[in-house]
Amino acid sequence: MTMEKKLVYFFGNGKADGTGAMKDMLGGKGAGLAEMTNAGVPVPPGFTITTEACNLFYELGKKVPEGLDAEMNEYLAKMEQAVGNGYRFGDVNKPLLVSVRSGSKFSMPGMMDTVLNLGLNDRTIEGLIRLSRNERFAWDAYRRFIQMFGNVVLGIEKEEFEHLISEAKKKKKVKLDLDLNAQDLKTLVEKFKAKVKQVKKRDFPQDPIEQLTMSRDAVFNSWNNPRAITYRRLNDIPANLGTAVNVQAMVYGNMGDTSATGVGFTRDPSTGAKVFYGEYLTNAQGEDVVAGTRTPHPIADLEKEMPAVYRQLREITDKLEKHYRDVQDFEFTVQENTLYMLQTRTGKRTAHAAVKIAVDMVKEGLISKEEAVLRVEPASLDQLLHPIIDPKAKITVVAKGLPASPGAASGMAVFSADEAVKQAKKHPVILCRPETTPDDIHGMDAAKGILTARGGMTSHAAVVARGMGKPCVAGCESIRVDVKAKKFSVDKTTVKEGDWVTIDGGTGRVILGKVPTKDPVVSGDFGTLMQWADEVRTLKVRANADVPRDAKMARQFGAEGIGLCRTEHMFFESERLPIVQQMILADSTEAREKALAKLLPMQRSDFKGLFETMDGLPVTIRLLDPPLHEFLPRREDLMVEIAVMQAKKAAKATISKKEKLLHRVEELHEFNPMLGHRGCRLGIVYPEITRMQTRAIIEAACDLAKKGKKVVPEIMVPLVGAVKELKNQKDLIKATAEEVMKKKGVRIEYLVGTMIELPRACVTADEIAKEAEFFSFGTNDLTQTTFGFSRDDAGKFINQYIETTILEKDPFQTLDQDGVGVLVKMGVEKGRKTRPDLKVGICGEHGGDPASVEFCYKAGLDYVSCSPFRLPIARLAAAQVRLKEKGVGGSGTK
Amino acid sequence: MTMEKKLVYFFGNGKADGTGAMKDMLGGKGAGLAEMTNAGVPVPPGFTITTEACNLFYELGKKVPEGLDAEMNEYLAKMEQAVGNGYRFGDVNKPLLVSVRSGSKFSMPGMMDTVLNLGLNDRTIEGLIRLSRNERFAWDAYRRFIQMFGNVVLGIEKEEFEHLISEAKKKKKVKLDLDLNAQDLKTLVEKFKAKVKQVKKRDFPQDPIEQLTMSRDAVFNSWNNPRAITYRRLNDIPANLGTAVNVQAMVYGNMGDTSATGVGFTRDPSTGAKVFYGEYLTNAQGEDVVAGTRTPHPIADLEKEMPAVYRQLREITDKLEKHYRDVQDFEFTVQENTLYMLQTRTGKRTAHAAVKIAVDMVKEGLISKEEAVLRVEPASLDQLLHPIIDPKAKITVVAKGLPASPGAASGMAVFSADEAVKQAKKHPVILCRPETTPDDIHGMDAAKGILTARGGMTSHAAVVARGMGKPCVAGCESIRVDVKAKKFSVDKTTVKEGDWVTIDGGTGRVILGKVPTKDPVVSGDFGTLMQWADEVRTLKVRANADVPRDAKMARQFGAEGIGLCRTEHMFFESERLPIVQQMILADSTEAREKALAKLLPMQRSDFKGLFETMDGLPVTIRLLDPPLHEFLPRREDLMVEIAVMQAKKAAKATISKKEKLLHRVEELHEFNPMLGHRGCRLGIVYPEITRMQTRAIIEAACDLAKKGKKVVPEIMVPLVGAVKELKNQKDLIKATAEEVMKKKGVRIEYLVGTMIELPRACVTADEIAKEAEFFSFGTNDLTQTTFGFSRDDAGKFINQYIETTILEKDPFQTLDQDGVGVLVKMGVEKGRKTRPDLKVGICGEHGGDPASVEFCYKAGLDYVSCSPFRLPIARLAAAQVRLKEKGVGGSGTK
Repeated sequence: MTMEKKLVYFFGNGKADGTGAMKDMLGGKGAGLAEMTNAGVPVPPGFTITTEACNLFYELGKKVPEGLDAEMNEYLAKMEQAVGNGYRFGDVNKPLLVSVRSGSKFSMPGMMDTVLNLGLNDRTIEGLIRLSRNERFAWDAYRRFIQMFGNVVLGIEKEEFEHLISEAKKKKKVKLDLDLNAQDLKTLVEKFKAKVKQVKKRDFPQDPIEQLTMSRDAVFNSWNNPRAITYRRLNDIPANLGTAVNVQAMVYGNMGDTSATGVGFTRDPSTGAKVFYGEYLTNAQGEDVVAGTRTPHPIADLEKEMPAVYRQLREITDKLEKHYRDVQDFEFTVQENTLYMLQTRTGKRTAHAAVKIAVDMVKEGLISKEEAVLRVEPASLDQLLHPIIDPKAKITVVAKGLPASPGAASGMAVFSADEAVKQAKKHPVILCRPETTPDDIHGMDAAKGILTARGGMTSHAAVVARGMGKPCVAGCESIRVDVKAKKFSVDKTTVKEGDWVTIDGGTGRVILGKVPTKDPVVSGDFGTLMQWADEVRTLKVRANADVPRDAKMARQFGAEGIGLCRTEHMFFESERLPIVQQMILADSTEAREKALAKLLPMQRSDFKGLFETMDGLPVTIRLLDPPLHEFLPRREDLMVEIAVMQAKKAAKATISKKEKLLHRVEELHEFNPMLGHRGCRLGIVYPEITRMQTRAIIEAACDLAKKGKKVVPEIMVPLVGAVKELKNQKDLIKATAEEVMKKKGVRIEYLVGTMIELPRACVTADEIAKEAEFFSFGTNDLTQTTFGFSRDDAGKFINQYIETTILEKDPFQTLDQDGVGVLVKMGVEKGRKTRPDLKVGICGEHGGDPASVEFCYKAGLDYVSCSPFRLPIARLAAAQVRLKEKGVGGSGTK
Repeated sequence: MTMEKKLVYFFGNGKADGTGAMKDMLGGKGAGLAEMTNAGVPVPPGFTITTEACNLFYELGKKVPEGLDAEMNEYLAKMEQAVGNGYRFGDVNKPLLVSVRSGSKFSMPGMMDTVLNLGLNDRTIEGLIRLSRNERFAWDAYRRFIQMFGNVVLGIEKEEFEHLISEAKKKKKVKLDLDLNAQDLKTLVEKFKAKVKQVKKRDFPQDPIEQLTMSRDAVFNSWNNPRAITYRRLNDIPANLGTAVNVQAMVYGNMGDTSATGVGFTRDPSTGAKVFYGEYLTNAQGEDVVAGTRTPHPIADLEKEMPAVYRQLREITDKLEKHYRDVQDFEFTVQENTLYMLQTRTGKRTAHAAVKIAVDMVKEGLISKEEAVLRVEPASLDQLLHPIIDPKAKITVVAKGLPASPGAASGMAVFSADEAVKQAKKHPVILCRPETTPDDIHGMDAAKGILTARGGMTSHAAVVARGMGKPCVAGCESIRVDVKAKKFSVDKTTVKEGDWVTIDGGTGRVILGKVPTKDPVVSGDFGTLMQWADEVRTLKVRANADVPRDAKMARQFGAEGIGLCRTEHMFFESERLPIVQQMILADSTEAREKALAKLLPMQRSDFKGLFETMDGLPVTIRLLDPPLHEFLPRREDLMVEIAVMQAKKAAKATISKKEKLLHRVEELHEFNPMLGHRGCRLGIVYPEITRMQTRAIIEAACDLAKKGKKVVPEIMVPLVGAVKELKNQKDLIKATAEEVMKKKGVRIEYLVGTMIELPRACVTADEIAKEAEFFSFGTNDLTQTTFGFSRDDAGKFINQYIETTILEKDPFQTLDQDGVGVLVKMGVEKGRKTRPDLKVGICGEHGGDPASVEFCYKAGLDYVSCSPFRLPIARLAAAQVRLKEKGVGGSGTK
């Protein structure tokens, strides 16, 4: 294969081959470096090997395309020229050192591997010592290089090197790395090289070119390491993008006290406040800030320490924010009082910050309202709606760390990622770690919240937790985490594995025990953004709400109606259950009707409450759906009870009473209740139930109508598979409603429609639409029947399915567009063919999932209905899909 | 509305308005009368009111179309002319009496109501006495007329009249109706008229025209009586056909010993033998023969009694059979030595007879082979395959009746139709009745067999039982059935309700107790017909068979391969179950593999046996399908056991052992096992199971291939909903097979395919076909998921669904073409789009249902697979649909 495409892009000396728009090709970091270079920002020169090269690497069976090595050499020469002053890669006198970093289209913090100080060897180290006039720095750089290269490229465990450092410190009886002098580090370098030889049976490579090509290939390989795969899965990043490799001249933040390194944001990524935000460390390399091993200083301190550098940094980052029209997350290094920008990218932020920043930037005239709407990831709104610690709760705060990711969470303390995954199946857990690393991702995913003793607001724990929308308290230095003993202690308090602990990621508080939480109050900015979203969206949004309390919440969150009121939830209330059981145990229609008569006034008042709360908005009421045995004691419990009574020779009459109950429970027992006697099948076999529920609905509506109130009941018949089922129930409903309205002397408008939640309903939707005045897709059940997955049982295999990518996503969370979605579309098309003005909605859990909302919009649905808390997500997602369709630009913050 | 269409058709005097082809319009009886009249057969003249008039009657809200009465009068006049001799309807001197009979397109024996002797009143009776010179006959005719009219037209219970007859006989101390003389009958007529007045508050109508119009309307109304509706449902007769009304001059078989009435068949409807077959009664009306109240004489006796009439009857019926080219079922009456044919129609017959007759008629040159194939109703073949009494069984024959419908059946004796329905839910029942009436239909449907004390081979019980393919012993006069006491006795033996009794409908034997039965041996004619069917059919037929024994049977019944071998049936065998349980209870993959290693040789030998039996025909083997808990003790049983042990303070070790088992059972417990961890989901989570089964299959195949035998294994992955599931399993199968073949040093051809049994599989069949080398539709599960019906639980509502016609048919018996069928077609189309040569079959229960076989052929399937016993049905159905498509005529015997 001959080289045809340009696989390497240069940047340096104020001019780059690429541009900021070339993220696909250069990755986020490479595009940022090109853009910054072109914008005159001081960036160390270098070149980017494209993502295409990475993909070719995989296509060729992990070999780089022919010619790439030669091309790299050419660009190395260009880089030497840009650096100037006679610096050359591998030169003994003036050695040019480089960094090798990954950089894919989407930021994957900490996921990919990096090698710094590349180009050092036993000969160039002498040049570095001469040039830097800092022997300790030089040996430290060489030590770091061998360590990183050994780990990242050669695959030697980090601990192997760390262990040698600890030994050296122990031997010298000092605590800090900084206490090791040049000689110590020189000795360490020898030990490191011996370690490499011992483990890998080869010498540490001395040829800088070999070092470079090996590192490049290691970055390519790191694209498919397990951490990267997990992160991509969690963040919806396609696996075929590949990563670019950035080779850049090294600058040093660790060349003494006039050097520093730091990271920052142009606005506060946690609150969104327009403040310059960041952290730095003097005399350190970048990894020291991110790794959380030393707690950095707030960036404001830099103004005092290096005022000129600080001013220049503010100017540059302001320019970058205006240039990119979004918050920038940047990395910088000061080498002996000279500022270099190493990276800029769109800053990750909390949902809270995203909303504030989007609204602020509209006010500042930086972006349009529509762009603002597109700037917030709908799913992230979940974070805003996280509970907070009940302000009235009596709490014992034992420590305070950084408020790294908002929300409050209680759980049992666990001290390793594996334990978190294990225990999270049984109860909520808080993952407590000294610091987190990418290896802990699965544990963070399983935990309700994360607590770390070290690291700042941009530490791994903080960044990842924010991305996950999970509460995190980071850098809580007063606690001592003992991973081995499975406990942490603070002063005289000890929290052991299994103890309850609560964290408040909004304030950084660590609280003992389980603490009551409170629903969040949303900000004015949030309301503003939602209003802008509502202005553009055409898809209606309703809520699933069963009682007036939920309905009230739903309206607060912007519901334009109730899409699903599950009447059975009213049946389960404690004072009603005995009557419901009486109804089920009745041995004649008359006895059943007697019990139903007692339920009638209760249901009527339920509906009245709902109608009043919704005040003229439509309310879809589903008739009784679950199989009747759900209201009775469990069969196996009765069996055990009776057997024990018999074994203990209890009174015959007592036993016989229980036996009678068991007999009825046995009659109602089902092998597959999901597919059993439920839904409209109940109302068909027991028409008196449908009659009672219809009476309750229509009577409530009539009573309110008489008072001049507008009521829009939509009566929904569940689990229809054949049009005649609906016809049967509709006839019953119409007749009953007619009777009630006649008696009440008032007429109300109401609709009779059906859930479409069985494949057969989709297939015969044209027939069903002859009777149905509306459709509501019950995508939970439709997913169950289309896949043949019981939601209650699928846990036994579905995780494995997702891990092995047999399924991309849990179809109960995100609507399966290839399977279930095809049936939904078929249902909509067939239904509208019969009845062009058919009102169609969805009321499964999917109504609050952004991707599913997008699907629903495209499938032509009139509305989605979801739980009240997810309404903002649905509203925003509905607005975004509309804007995308209209071609309004602006990318979200992936 | 004005009359536009001809609604009345005349027949008589050797010429009819209609023809035999006009069954739709004239009904079977009317068309037969027209045809016979045209053919010069002596038929009493009359006219037929069309089925269209019946439908108009219903359209007009149970009113006849305007002008129909006038048209009828016109035709009455024509009829009077044809009868001649001055007979006139309503005439006092020469009264013409008529019969009014229903007659729809398809024969519905005993379902519809008939009125005879219409035209009699207090004045015309005198004429009849004079003309007949038989006062007793005349009063008996009048008595019968009032009784039938009173019952059929006025809706008075039969018992009301019967009671008066019984009283009269009691008063006179006689036993038989014949013992009542003219005076007695005259008195009875008065009492009957008084009864009518008493019950209906009106006089018995004296105006013959009013009698006629009321009767006509009653026949129209009888089309929708409950018995007729039930019969139509059981026999697949559409409800919108309507019935014709035949008004025909009366002739009398009860005018003394030179008169007779009878019914017959041109061949034996039970055996198919070419013998003149029938029964008659001297001095009787037709209803006496059919009703079973008197046991008639075999028709051979007529030759002695009335030789000339007998000869004429033979000539006419021979002519009719040749004319219609099929067995004729005829009714005749001899009035004072003159023969009249009252009806002829295609004779209903047993499956056995149908086969023999079809084959004989081809030999006789009467019909073609293809017509012969179309002459046998596929579903009826079931009868041929009914078990017979094991000839070696020691049996106690207590009585012998008529062999009215073939097959042997054991069951508990019940004495009413309602009881039959009730008890049949728990155990098999034999319905024992003095005789049956159309009111007993539901009980006959529920019973395994029917036993009657009275009635002949053409009695209601016999005709209906044959239609149902159920064993029936009729006219078993030696038994006394006491319905009230719920028992029958014969000599000194009494059989009470709940006692086991066995009937042999092939020989007429009634046997005490439960008797072992034996599989039937099919006749040479059957083989001939099947061969003809095979010559025309293109749809292949396979069998569902799990063990060599079934496979042998399958080949005998013509299987062209095994379409479904359910490997789990091999797991349930008693010596294997403990090993299977060991495998399930294993707490590591290694332990599981150890147990599987023990199963391997067993499975291998299973497959070897199957392959050897099938001898080169394809064998589709489904990998393990059911959820694993099916192989363990029931959860609730363990719970009870443990609770009882605890209550009784059993040893802790014993309890803890059980608890451990329960723990695993709980882990495997599922709320909806149908939708749970089963099918390919097992093989994905436990690849070692798939590996073992593949090894067993391929090793068996290799071993046989080495011996030069041809083996065609098709490995089928169950319950695939996403192509990646299949890919996962296919990769595993291919790798394992490759390994086995390498080791065995022999290569065999095999396919890997999948069941299509989930809606999602149909929807994504194009994707699945990328991996699948064949599809087999599992329509059982597909029906469950498409409808959301659990087959095990649907019993709670499905009967009501069918009774109220929410569903036309049980979708588990006949494939639901509107819903499930649409998905099947989608699956076939999408699958073949990806892989045009994709082999597609069906292996649900539907493969043996004629309507479903027809559907499968039309949907383009390559084969159907069903249980061995249903293979002949599938073969015949497949041949018929092919012939129908080719436009070969000939109607089945509905």
